[in-house]
Amino acid sequence: MTRQLQKPKILNVEVVARSRLFTVEAVDLEFSNGARRVYERMKPSEREAVMIVPIIDNHLILIQEYVVGLESYELGFPKGLMDAGETPFEAANRELKEEVGFGAGKLEILGQLTLAPSYFSSKMNILVAEGLYAEQLEGDEPEPLPQLRWPLDNLPGLLLEPDFQEARNVSALFLAREWLVKQGRLRNRT
Amino acid sequence: MTRQLQKPKILNVEVVARSRLFTVEAVDLEFSNGARRVYERMKPSEREAVMIVPIIDNHLILIQEYVVGLESYELGFPKGLMDAGETPFEAANRELKEEVGFGAGKLEILGQLTLAPSYFSSKMNILVAEGLYAEQLEGDEPEPLPQLRWPLDNLPGLLLEPDFQEARNVSALFLAREWLVKQGRLRNRT
Repeated sequence: MTRQLQKPKILNVEVVARSRLFTVEAVDLEFSNGARRVYERMKPSEREAVMIVPIIDNHLILIQEYVVGLESYELGFPKGLMDAGETPFEAANRELKEEVGFGAGKLEILGQLTLAPSYFSSKMNILVAEGLYAEQLEGDEPEPLPQLRWPLDNLPGLLLEPDFQEARNVSALFLAREWLVKQGRLRNRT
Repeated sequence: MTRQLQKPKILNVEVVARSRLFTVEAVDLEFSNGARRVYERMKPSEREAVMIVPIIDNHLILIQEYVVGLESYELGFPKGLMDAGETPFEAANRELKEEVGFGAGKLEILGQLTLAPSYFSSKMNILVAEGLYAEQLEGDEPEPLPQLRWPLDNLPGLLLEPDFQEARNVSALFLAREWLVKQGRLRNRT
């Protein structure tokens, strides 16, 4: 199977809207067949993010956070942007301390995810964290994030929770389960 | 475990940037502990989307599409917005005909995913499509979308492809595998 395709030519890139957080670009494209399109995207950034799946006493640790897009509290794994100069491991450990109050003695990268790359360039590194020890760092959250522990022997049950539906969280859950099964720490189950 | 939390009060919502595709709102929030924040989000929309996992001859059908956020061709499942009045099944069948050239005799919903709900309200319905028959509808793609068939007996191998990393696609792959395993059509494997 041949997978190499000729990319469209980028004829022009223009900022068309800007807010404190978002910069929208219009990109004028000419596809290899001559078709022209103007696509909008968020201005690309090299800054990556981390999401951490913390494991303690045969449970996952999840947090509840208010999300203004849905105007609700959602259940998910701690996450955040990497600071300049940080490795994914350092960023994961910092975010874990800020959002959950634990440092990790052992971190491993499970994979990398993109998010709607028609519009965004962002990449998120998914890590599993073990060997947890209590250590709190001050974060920028407006309120403490309630925590919830979910038993490893019922991971599929988490998919039935109506407030656990976010695509990166769902992917991270499955990736963590693969990782645990591969190590023989979890029986494969449907 | 108590999970009910008191939502922040929304004090004000204001449009702060607008382009052809995106409308950015600033939302002034007061959390239950009195903390104030202004969060930005994309203006919420009720319009849902569909992603379709098509199965034929013990293979998944994937497409390659240019995504301007990453300026690359990415591998994924066909997807699109639901039109007004469409059910997820109707939208899935239409998108499949437009993007892949097949109608589906059998469609089943595997779940619903959200995407970065700190910023977006969008919900995507994940469906599996079988009983495929050739039927092409005209879409709005600038070029035909190359297709690729991936054997069901090597689904984890797809996760190793560098152009298959998008969180909704990864989630859909795992959800489809769960569904196949549950039906006894696939052996559980790591």
